Amino acid sequence: MRLKEDNLLERLRRERPLIHCMTNYVTAGDVANYLLAAGASPVMADSAREAEEVTAAARGLVLNLGTLSDEKLAAMRLAGKKAAVLGHPIVLDPVGAGGASFRTEAAKALVHELPCSVIRGNVSEILALSEESSALYGVDAGKKDELDRKNLERCAKAAERLARMSGAVVVMTGKKDLIADENRYCLVDNGHPMMKRITGAGCMLDGLTAAFLGVSIEEKKREWVFERAVYAAAAHGLCGEMAWEKTEAAKGGTGTFHTCLFDAVSIITDHQIQEGARIEI
Amino acid sequence: MRLKEDNLLERLRRERPLIHCMTNYVTAGDVANYLLAAGASPVMADSAREAEEVTAAARGLVLNLGTLSDEKLAAMRLAGKKAAVLGHPIVLDPVGAGGASFRTEAAKALVHELPCSVIRGNVSEILALSEESSALYGVDAGKKDELDRKNLERCAKAAERLARMSGAVVVMTGKKDLIADENRYCLVDNGHPMMKRITGAGCMLDGLTAAFLGVSIEEKKREWVFERAVYAAAAHGLCGEMAWEKTEAAKGGTGTFHTCLFDAVSIITDHQIQEGARIEI
Amino acid sequence: MRLKEDNLLERLRRERPLIHCMTNYVTAGDVANYLLAAGASPVMADSAREAEEVTAAARGLVLNLGTLSDEKLAAMRLAGKKAAVLGHPIVLDPVGAGGASFRTEAAKALVHELPCSVIRGNVSEILALSEESSALYGVDAGKKDELDRKNLERCAKAAERLARMSGAVVVMTGKKDLIADENRYCLVDNGHPMMKRITGAGCMLDGLTAAFLGVSIEEKKREWVFERAVYAAAAHGLCGEMAWEKTEAAKGGTGTFHTCLFDAVSIITDHQIQEGARIEI
Repeated sequence: MRLKEDNLLERLRRERPLIHCMTNYVTAGDVANYLLAAGASPVMADSAREAEEVTAAARGLVLNLGTLSDEKLAAMRLAGKKAAVLGHPIVLDPVGAGGASFRTEAAKALVHELPCSVIRGNVSEILALSEESSALYGVDAGKKDELDRKNLERCAKAAERLARMSGAVVVMTGKKDLIADENRYCLVDNGHPMMKRITGAGCMLDGLTAAFLGVSIEEKKREWVFERAVYAAAAHGLCGEMAWEKTEAAKGGTGTFHTCLFDAVSIITDHQIQEGARIEI
Repeated sequence: MRLKEDNLLERLRRERPLIHCMTNYVTAGDVANYLLAAGASPVMADSAREAEEVTAAARGLVLNLGTLSDEKLAAMRLAGKKAAVLGHPIVLDPVGAGGASFRTEAAKALVHELPCSVIRGNVSEILALSEESSALYGVDAGKKDELDRKNLERCAKAAERLARMSGAVVVMTGKKDLIADENRYCLVDNGHPMMKRITGAGCMLDGLTAAFLGVSIEEKKREWVFERAVYAAAAHGLCGEMAWEKTEAAKGGTGTFHTCLFDAVSIITDHQIQEGARIEI
Repeated sequence: MRLKEDNLLERLRRERPLIHCMTNYVTAGDVANYLLAAGASPVMADSAREAEEVTAAARGLVLNLGTLSDEKLAAMRLAGKKAAVLGHPIVLDPVGAGGASFRTEAAKALVHELPCSVIRGNVSEILALSEESSALYGVDAGKKDELDRKNLERCAKAAERLARMSGAVVVMTGKKDLIADENRYCLVDNGHPMMKRITGAGCMLDGLTAAFLGVSIEEKKREWVFERAVYAAAAHGLCGEMAWEKTEAAKGGTGTFHTCLFDAVSIITDHQIQEGARIEI
């Protein structure tokens, strides 16, 4: 698969879309730095006193359920409704859905109430939202969140079901990433296992996806969302590969890898994404 | 302009002033690390249950309005009033003022209620507080927050007006930094554009400024605040320049730059600040 | 002293225990990254809506009182009681006890209510909890939190007293770390002064200690907790030493050191811990 918008990152860097991130306090700094490194402009605000106003001024909204509280959830609802009215893209990350029932219920409610553009989660989280029993998975997503031959069909069906239920493009990240809308899916085979040994790689992809969705287009179509979500997953995975190359050369560990991941996203080009993306249909 | 207190950093490292930072959760870790690297001692506490007590034990207070909430604002008021009674320096950073009305109103109220020593913000934020119409600016400060020849006069007037209204020294950061009190201003031409490609460079300067203000002096005068604010801006900008030198040599990106910025502030000397400061009156 | 469980880190990496961290927003990202780098699996959740459920699914609980609020404290109580019922190890870090009375009271209440496995703090914090007058110390722990010959006896007595009162193993960190139960103590002489020039080194040790306690054992005995707390302190200190070696070679400062600390914990082996641990009985 060849990516059609072959200068998306360049346009992102020219337009510097403002992305409103309502995210957890564990990785908020990393998400802001990742967006800035990529060329976008992050703004973090999660009080109900200003969530709507900030969203209205931005070009995309990230709702990430890590370290969720009742107050933050209420503010997310306000921001999400405002984004919906304005037609701004919403990226929902149901962190911990399937593990903790507060998160599962919150994620389901937001999926029901908001016209999300993208829902991004690991296997356990997406299965939990697609209303398949996730009894086999529990909170410890780590051990199962791989897309291997055995569970590929099951994962693809769950992602497509959630896409149908929600109207969103579903991005299920794991060893490979599976991107699905209601009719089709593809796999992105970029990335490196070190991305699971730092916190926030998923949250960074949330932000990057929203930033790509925030780049202006002539006419909004579902297909664009699908393709840009694929573009974001491929770019993010490639940044992980570039970071690992440097880390290995420096005989570094996860600290060096973390630093190199930001380096990569600040330096990567559309050309590198086009050349390096490994997309399987 | 020659900086008069030519051993301020050395004294900071000897005294290790405790600085109470009431700041956003996005950059709190970076601010703490920046203060520790410089040689000061940070303490973060934002519950109304302890804000006053912590402020009383500290030698300076930072009020940064990022990720503001009603609860945090209430605690800031308590801490600010305690600091005022005790004569401790207060550094206010009106993050997002001019963009979101909750922040604009909160910032204006704090300026009115508290005897801030320093107010530090970008062009949009300072214009919003100086009560000039900021309709031209909006939340997307990034595109306009440069001090170029065209808008220098307007910026200087706004900063001086805010200084007069508030009694504070005003630090307006951008491509150059403008530091003003009610009668005069100067420009600090240190720094590097990479500082805008990481989150929190402004927040780190808030902390560093408070730390310099927390170093003991014989007799408190307005002039000292002005000069120490200049010293902090010059030192911070120089750290950015040093970080960029190393980043470039390593062919790194924003991740490497971020790491090198902490290295720089942990290593820089008063001599380097004196030699490297580019101050225009 | 030879450490008995000489493959504890290897087992940690095999089992990847899930550790529920209720911690401050300043260092939460670093704690998550440190746990992931070591090989454990962190989960951060601090709403009363889910604290119990998350704790029940985890193998260890960290209660760190940095940036404490009433809401977080209430959620900590719920999680702590659930962990107690289930027999999960609890690591309490009384950040700021002895400095701010809200923290001192909260820490004392939690020590009284919960069967903590480990209480870890600096000298001032442990003295404050052991109910010795801490008038000499105040919030500025930095200047006094060294274990030197003069105050060793006093520190050891305070730690043993707190161990007796609480039933916990007490870890008092400083220039050397003192680990005590009600009958004995030992000193761990690993680490590097740079660990005090970054924020969160103590919080990272909280997490690492909980992760080691979360590795399965046949039969739970007090002695195991003591030995694993020693193992964690030695491993953590050695990581600091390894990080300093690399930092020095690179002529880096605190930024490089911070990065190298994560590298170290992601690379260190049981063999290195066994060989490098300097434990004095």
